[in-house]
Amino acid sequence: MSVKAKAIYTFLSENKEEISIQENEELVIFDENSVDGWFQGENSRGERGLFPASYVEIIRTRSNSNVTDCSISPAGSLGKDSSYFSSIPITPPNLQQPYYDDEDDDWDDWDDRSTVVEDADYSRSPGANGHDYQSPVSNNPNVHYRTKPHMERQDSISSSRKGSMVGRNLNRFSSFVRSGVEAFVLGDVPMMAKIAESYTIEMGTVGPQWKVSPQPFTCSIEDPTKQTKFKGIKTYISYRVTPSHIGRPVYRRYKHFDWLYNRLLHKFTVISVPHLPEKQATGRFEEDFIEKRKRRLILWMNHMTSHPVLSQYEGFEHFLMCTDDKQWKLGKRRAEKDEMVGAHFMLTLQIPNEHQDLQDVEERVDTFKAFAKKMDDSVMQLTHVASELVRKHLGGFRKEFQRLGNAFQSISQAFMLDPPHSSEGLNSAISHTGRTYENIGEMFAEQPKYDLFQMLDKLSLYQGLLANFPDIIHLQKGAFAKVKESQRMCDEGKMDQDEADGIRKRCRTVGFALQAEMSHFHQRREVDFKDMMQAYLREQIAFYQRVVQQLERTLRMYECL
Amino acid sequence: MSVKAKAIYTFLSENKEEISIQENEELVIFDENSVDGWFQGENSRGERGLFPASYVEIIRTRSNSNVTDCSISPAGSLGKDSSYFSSIPITPPNLQQPYYDDEDDDWDDWDDRSTVVEDADYSRSPGANGHDYQSPVSNNPNVHYRTKPHMERQDSISSSRKGSMVGRNLNRFSSFVRSGVEAFVLGDVPMMAKIAESYTIEMGTVGPQWKVSPQPFTCSIEDPTKQTKFKGIKTYISYRVTPSHIGRPVYRRYKHFDWLYNRLLHKFTVISVPHLPEKQATGRFEEDFIEKRKRRLILWMNHMTSHPVLSQYEGFEHFLMCTDDKQWKLGKRRAEKDEMVGAHFMLTLQIPNEHQDLQDVEERVDTFKAFAKKMDDSVMQLTHVASELVRKHLGGFRKEFQRLGNAFQSISQAFMLDPPHSSEGLNSAISHTGRTYENIGEMFAEQPKYDLFQMLDKLSLYQGLLANFPDIIHLQKGAFAKVKESQRMCDEGKMDQDEADGIRKRCRTVGFALQAEMSHFHQRREVDFKDMMQAYLREQIAFYQRVVQQLERTLRMYECL
Repeated sequence: MSVKAKAIYTFLSENKEEISIQENEELVIFDENSVDGWFQGENSRGERGLFPASYVEIIRTRSNSNVTDCSISPAGSLGKDSSYFSSIPITPPNLQQPYYDDEDDDWDDWDDRSTVVEDADYSRSPGANGHDYQSPVSNNPNVHYRTKPHMERQDSISSSRKGSMVGRNLNRFSSFVRSGVEAFVLGDVPMMAKIAESYTIEMGTVGPQWKVSPQPFTCSIEDPTKQTKFKGIKTYISYRVTPSHIGRPVYRRYKHFDWLYNRLLHKFTVISVPHLPEKQATGRFEEDFIEKRKRRLILWMNHMTSHPVLSQYEGFEHFLMCTDDKQWKLGKRRAEKDEMVGAHFMLTLQIPNEHQDLQDVEERVDTFKAFAKKMDDSVMQLTHVASELVRKHLGGFRKEFQRLGNAFQSISQAFMLDPPHSSEGLNSAISHTGRTYENIGEMFAEQPKYDLFQMLDKLSLYQGLLANFPDIIHLQKGAFAKVKESQRMCDEGKMDQDEADGIRKRCRTVGFALQAEMSHFHQRREVDFKDMMQAYLREQIAFYQRVVQQLERTLRMYECL
Repeated sequence: MSVKAKAIYTFLSENKEEISIQENEELVIFDENSVDGWFQGENSRGERGLFPASYVEIIRTRSNSNVTDCSISPAGSLGKDSSYFSSIPITPPNLQQPYYDDEDDDWDDWDDRSTVVEDADYSRSPGANGHDYQSPVSNNPNVHYRTKPHMERQDSISSSRKGSMVGRNLNRFSSFVRSGVEAFVLGDVPMMAKIAESYTIEMGTVGPQWKVSPQPFTCSIEDPTKQTKFKGIKTYISYRVTPSHIGRPVYRRYKHFDWLYNRLLHKFTVISVPHLPEKQATGRFEEDFIEKRKRRLILWMNHMTSHPVLSQYEGFEHFLMCTDDKQWKLGKRRAEKDEMVGAHFMLTLQIPNEHQDLQDVEERVDTFKAFAKKMDDSVMQLTHVASELVRKHLGGFRKEFQRLGNAFQSISQAFMLDPPHSSEGLNSAISHTGRTYENIGEMFAEQPKYDLFQMLDKLSLYQGLLANFPDIIHLQKGAFAKVKESQRMCDEGKMDQDEADGIRKRCRTVGFALQAEMSHFHQRREVDFKDMMQAYLREQIAFYQRVVQQLERTLRMYECL
């Protein structure tokens, strides 16, 4: 059944099956159930096609909802529970409708027949989720960065529950409230009798850090293979995923990664969960796209296994080890029923006894915030420059060298036209020079595969990681504000010192966790950027050496004339 | 006194002191005496500035001329004899007003105060004089090839003289008539009692060729130096010119080269005289312009000394050897009074006795013509591509690498913002990588000086040489037509066999001379293009090797981290 909707973000189509939508534009959606996060519908200009479900709000009329009249509710992939945001449930989040329905196993497969080639233009970088740094102004007005809506963390603890006299944040969409950290800080999350999980933060040489995993491992992702089921009606790509500490591969689809990713978002407050490579409605079976997705899944996996907390997550272990279909479903259910998510996750953190002045922590966080903003800007700048370079390699550079090659060929053809004087050796040397420059043009066009693509992959991972930090930093800011507020109330005699001390203690936990996460980010960044720069330079050297070799071989043809 | 004129060719200004004029546009000229071939005036749009005198015709009103009423006469640099073309003199050309006036020694100096920088845009190649190949269509609609008017050979033998019954060409501007070759073929040029000069054509392995000069030599052009005279009022550039067989330098200005060049045009029918590097009204004292002119004068000189006929010319010898001012003027006068010019020059040629079927010669020339047209096209194409590459090197390539460098620098700056985690070694390596790419950008911008400029210089020389051939080929075509006409008249009994035989014999001379010139062209072309390609490849190899070295040094910074 078709319904009306309104665009809440502008979306620019990147494939011919997609349509562009403008912020505030009225839309018609043909089927309220989004597929793979995409709606099929029509915009106000009468164009029909796909657009991201999370970019629009379905407009509810009186007959559809008894909560609010003509309310607008974010659509997203919520599917069967589209009134989720208009009536925040009191029940704990783990009792809610799971994000994914086991029975609906085909949401990744719906456009298998698509043959649209992925646009090789890397310049349209994905914007970042929940990103509130000021974006650098693009030098090229034709490049549009796609702005993505906030990734909703669905585990808001009810703000209606009264447990403390300290004021609550009225903005229930702020990450502080959504994540449950407000509730945690205010002591609204009861300590549970038995907590199986425990993550330790210890003091390192430059501040708090996550305690390393007792069993570190890596994990390869290889061999993306086209698979079919239902007698060929459904097609998908399967990846061989082999964790080093198990040594036995499992086969996973993108939708499995996506399930895991959403579990991570759900559970890990205060941790910057790496974004998955972008979804794409069409062209998913094109070789270039499969390659790119594989490369980016590898980077994602490297970050996952490198993280002392994320790498130990039970759901991740399940993802990496489970080979049995029945066990898979059971494990999924178990992960979806995990109680230690969001606010409760904070209870699993063990912090050191060292005293940290909250003001110092605040300054430390502000420094990191300034760093992260500048890094985000410069990663964006480098992404833009590298994307433009890819375009130049494929276009301008190739063209220039090929034109030069053609012109040399043309000279050699002219020289052949007067046979008694045709100087055969010279002609064939010039003609060879022409081919050499045509080759060099092709080498330029090929080169991004060996260097710039890898750089862009890594930059994309970091764009995602950096995009998480404003929300994470906001958690600490919110907690710190609560401490100050409770201290003031305590001074005014409106609050027990015990309660205020509790708030301060829990705020320390938030601060330690954030600092550990900052530290982990720096540690990975150093490794990743060193690798990235070295790999880039090595490939560049190899490239120019190949050019030199080609030219030297060509020059030799003239020497024996 | 200002006079009215009409543009006979479209001219596009290339410097801010020049103005553009449209074909047929009415103009006002402030001073009828052109300076260095340029008029100062105003176009119909009220713009004031310089334009080439040879592109306009002065409009004569009744009071200015008693020859024709309101006639239009080509202006050019004819100066005092502006009615030259409207009343062709019967007197031999060597008695005419010389092209240059000794007293007017300052025509090269008039805009000494100019500081306009020469436009570095090589894409505006000079069109070719007397060029009747079809020009290749430029791929870039913004690039205008300047079309130059025909270089007038001023030694037309009067076509009013009656000496033969074979019809004369009525187009007195055709090269056949202008050059005097028609008159020569028809036997109108009397053999002189004593001819001091003699140039021999001999049969080589692939056809007729000029006999090599008994005393071959080379000649260096070095050290362009700014000189002043009249207490600094006049400024000019002087070149040190050192012929190898003399070993003693002379100092020459561009105007001396130009004088020599015009003597060569005047005298050497059937020979492709290399064009001098372009004149330029402004920016003549800019370093880039001086460098470019020097490089192109060297190529011009190399072609001169390599030519068995041109290199032996008495006027050239005078140019290369004379160091005394008084002797210089005497030698100039002598060269200007040379009788063996144009049609008479044909009398100095000694041809072999070998029989050549005229039909074979005709085919030989047609083959060359097709070759020359294709070569002209491909030289134009390569010039266009190379000019565009220069532009890319100075613009796009430099910009891309500098942007990449900036982006790396920006990353390294971000990394410095969180001091406890600032990874100094990595930061300085990344910052160094940024500088390396900025350097590479500069290296790209510098590179044309080492390779493409030299290529463009040589291509420009060949554009000039090729541009001469249509006219030269036309001489042979005209002569061959006369042979057929005289044979027909002979068959009809309207002409003596003797006279027809004389025409045939003189046509053979034209054919031999043309073939010798074609052969010389091929010989030089082979040497020049081999050198050009080798030099280009060597510089390209050196360039990419330098890039590799820079990158290798930079990579090493990461290895010790």
